[in-house]
Amino acid sequence: MTDVSAGRSRAGIESVKVVTVSDGSTQPRFDDVVREEPLQIRIVQAGKTHDIAVTMRTPGNDFELAAGFLFSEGVVRSPQDIVSISYCIDDDIERQQHYNIVNVELAAGGAPALERLERHFAIGSACGICGKAQLESLQLRVAPIQSRMTVSSAVLTGLPKRLEHQQRAFATTGGLHASALFDPVGNLEAIREDVGRHNAMDKLIGFGLLNDRLPYNDAIVLVSGRSSFEIVQKAAVASVPIVCSVSAPSTLAIEAARDVQMTLVGFLRGRRFNVYSGGDRIV
Amino acid sequence: MTDVSAGRSRAGIESVKVVTVSDGSTQPRFDDVVREEPLQIRIVQAGKTHDIAVTMRTPGNDFELAAGFLFSEGVVRSPQDIVSISYCIDDDIERQQHYNIVNVELAAGGAPALERLERHFAIGSACGICGKAQLESLQLRVAPIQSRMTVSSAVLTGLPKRLEHQQRAFATTGGLHASALFDPVGNLEAIREDVGRHNAMDKLIGFGLLNDRLPYNDAIVLVSGRSSFEIVQKAAVASVPIVCSVSAPSTLAIEAARDVQMTLVGFLRGRRFNVYSGGDRIV
Repeated sequence: MTDVSAGRSRAGIESVKVVTVSDGSTQPRFDDVVREEPLQIRIVQAGKTHDIAVTMRTPGNDFELAAGFLFSEGVVRSPQDIVSISYCIDDDIERQQHYNIVNVELAAGGAPALERLERHFAIGSACGICGKAQLESLQLRVAPIQSRMTVSSAVLTGLPKRLEHQQRAFATTGGLHASALFDPVGNLEAIREDVGRHNAMDKLIGFGLLNDRLPYNDAIVLVSGRSSFEIVQKAAVASVPIVCSVSAPSTLAIEAARDVQMTLVGFLRGRRFNVYSGGDRIV
Repeated sequence: MTDVSAGRSRAGIESVKVVTVSDGSTQPRFDDVVREEPLQIRIVQAGKTHDIAVTMRTPGNDFELAAGFLFSEGVVRSPQDIVSISYCIDDDIERQQHYNIVNVELAAGGAPALERLERHFAIGSACGICGKAQLESLQLRVAPIQSRMTVSSAVLTGLPKRLEHQQRAFATTGGLHASALFDPVGNLEAIREDVGRHNAMDKLIGFGLLNDRLPYNDAIVLVSGRSSFEIVQKAAVASVPIVCSVSAPSTLAIEAARDVQMTLVGFLRGRRFNVYSGGDRIV
């Protein structure tokens, strides 16, 4: 299934009038600013529509975002669970909100959708954590990652430059996070960007789901920001064996990575990095 | 009301065993990592307990976080609405989750708590946006900011250094966001840190609420990261006239700031910054 919303990714930037103050002197000019808009994710199953979550996202790859979010939450388990994904542009929706609502139609009886949603989204969420009413539900319920893939440290230290090169188009805004998928020798397979870190990861996972490319058990994922628990959680559901970040992890991200035997690399800068978990995959 | 949870703020860092790889050679060592743990926020009113939200946060100033979150969501409107704030450490709670649940007891009939919650948290949230079932609910419902406060550009360009100086204790982890409150001549009044940007802002607002220091209509707030819609939203509820960030804003943050006549400054670095909204407060 192709993400027909992908073509809108150039809509991720807007030119905004600003005043630049430098050494006290002012100059009006136009500046590129990253777009942020709400996306409401709905599922449709057996003729019924359910509002699942609203996330603040950068427009573009919206169908991947919706699919990846539902996958990392365990609502959708395979591409077959999804019948269709479409924008909801009913007449009664404000024009301003067109393309801000995505309907994901699920196969009847396929996914464990509704019951699971009742439990997980009783106080629901767009970012996978907040809103889960029970602390217990935060525990990862994924099997340990079995992948025997290995990677050289030289490949790892080469990844940030490749990411940076691809991000150049968006570098003007200074406001985007990226998640990128690399093969074991460091070739870039996909990159997704968003104003929100979790969204960039959901988009990357949605790309895999919609292109029947999951599990990612032969791949490295690099995130531009820090690695929090949720980044590790989402990557674990997609079976990513090696997750790298150019910045710091949190304690809970490290714990979660160790629990599922994921390799977690942080502060990947220059020719240096820290290994927090699963060092045996680095040769 | 004093935040007795404040003393736990030194608990925000943990020493974790890592392996550092540099130019291919490896060295095991201990590294400071920012702690991330779930915090469940509950309200207690008329003898009934309601789970409101779970947020991933850095332990410390938890009562401020809970109070600030409820204030910026409009559930609590004044310090008088809050009867007490306490950790829930019942025997039936896993030891690991002790100090991860906060009960906020609300005055009966005081706050518009429960009805408002029904509406807002039908699909609730820890971060103020995600989970709001209706896109319409994203619109700011705060009055325009009336403050006639002005600030010189020299004061503004001096703020990041003051923030950095105070953050030194946490600089070792590389994983913390900060929100800081300054007076019109640049004196630091309060700083709060967290693994999550929204939490740092909620803690800063909770500080004001619990110390009867709100509204912040005579203050500048500086955030360490980017300014998203939610940062502007929370600041607007606390009536902050001037919000600065060392990094980029999003389009929706700019729109929201213009709507409420808030001064929004971005890319505050060195002797330079951009003004996106409300430039008349900068002299």
